[in-house]
Amino acid sequence: MMRLRYLTSAIAQQIDKDLMSPSGGFSIDQLMELAGLSCAEAVFRSYPPTASANKVLVACGPGNQGGDGLVAARHLFHFGYTPTVWYPKRKDAPLFNGLVQQLQNLSVRFIDDEALESTVNSETSVVLDAIFGFSFHGEPREPFRRALEVLIRAQKERNVPIVSVDIPSSWNVDEGQNTSDIAKQFNPNVLVSLTAPKMGVAHFQGEKHWLGGRFVDPVMDAKYDLKLPRYPGTSQVVDITGAQPTEA
Amino acid sequence: MMRLRYLTSAIAQQIDKDLMSPSGGFSIDQLMELAGLSCAEAVFRSYPPTASANKVLVACGPGNQGGDGLVAARHLFHFGYTPTVWYPKRKDAPLFNGLVQQLQNLSVRFIDDEALESTVNSETSVVLDAIFGFSFHGEPREPFRRALEVLIRAQKERNVPIVSVDIPSSWNVDEGQNTSDIAKQFNPNVLVSLTAPKMGVAHFQGEKHWLGGRFVDPVMDAKYDLKLPRYPGTSQVVDITGAQPTEA
Repeated sequence: MMRLRYLTSAIAQQIDKDLMSPSGGFSIDQLMELAGLSCAEAVFRSYPPTASANKVLVACGPGNQGGDGLVAARHLFHFGYTPTVWYPKRKDAPLFNGLVQQLQNLSVRFIDDEALESTVNSETSVVLDAIFGFSFHGEPREPFRRALEVLIRAQKERNVPIVSVDIPSSWNVDEGQNTSDIAKQFNPNVLVSLTAPKMGVAHFQGEKHWLGGRFVDPVMDAKYDLKLPRYPGTSQVVDITGAQPTEA
Repeated sequence: MMRLRYLTSAIAQQIDKDLMSPSGGFSIDQLMELAGLSCAEAVFRSYPPTASANKVLVACGPGNQGGDGLVAARHLFHFGYTPTVWYPKRKDAPLFNGLVQQLQNLSVRFIDDEALESTVNSETSVVLDAIFGFSFHGEPREPFRRALEVLIRAQKERNVPIVSVDIPSSWNVDEGQNTSDIAKQFNPNVLVSLTAPKMGVAHFQGEKHWLGGRFVDPVMDAKYDLKLPRYPGTSQVVDITGAQPTEA
């Protein structure tokens, strides 16, 4: 069985800080680009586009994970999908505005809250959940809570699969699924962990678990005892389905 | 036969400017990340790493193409190569300093001018030429001229293959290989054109020609009449070996 380190929210935030510190040398633009590319590749490998099923609904939250989703939407377009983006709480910063602009140049459709349910139910082949990331805690607020209910219903009633980024939205990053009613009902089919899996997904039961974020150096891997697996070829994701946390 | 638009230096610079303008929405960090990733993937597909041949010498010039090379070196490390970087004229800017820092964190070796020839001749499986890009004109200055002579000799005498980025270094971006003595002698085995090929490589005779930079939107494709081919799967490069320029 593959064992790797599952991170607490605090450690995940520390690693992110390390990567973007002068001693890490990364800019947020670079990390977000590679994170979003990993997410797009995970969608491609899980649900490759076909003539009749190439519509991805990308649900973007208000923070950095929403940015990962915007990057992923761009790559998904180039991979042959027709992405639609729901991004209700936009972050007004040059990086995020630029990512939105790039998608507008691809004629990617942005939908509002009212259109979400009908879009998910009538013309969505797969959902990319980039709503909440490793900084999330507490209960999801509107309009995100209602969106999660829409996704749960579409998955149950219409088999619309959900690919979640890093932590299924509404799950507690440290404690997982049993901390709220909505989290208990939200069971993504596929998970893309970025950098390393988070403690909260130790009991993830979906079909597929990918690891992405192919940019961690061996010194950081050792410092945080991540025990990262080898990625194959030029892939930005590696299959870690069935992985378990190392003993703490 | 595949035909696509080959760009003049002036048009290539205009497209770059468009991409990074507010209406394009890209940051240089994003474009350089994707360009460098394309270059690394082209090296991988041309000369996949083996236990006995996994050493890449990445030669980085003073401008943005040097940055593409630094990004490529990082990805090559993650793809299983042992990159060594020659980067004699460093650009002192946060982006470039960060890229160097990332490589230092991977324990990638940086060599000076004195070590270049022995490194190329004794322990290099493939060279990535990221010296001059689409803004280059005139004659290569030292230490780059001498470096090109080293590469030419190693290729001739020891079959060390050369992968050039965008335009083989020393070739004229508009007019190609016949404008200087050193350019006439410099014949890379593989070329990675970024965004679209440049006029100067219309008569490129190497074994393989890749196109990279999977980020151009259809409106820009139409505006500049690029006639870009489809990229396969999630690849950041597409094989355009044998492509010819469209009639002007």
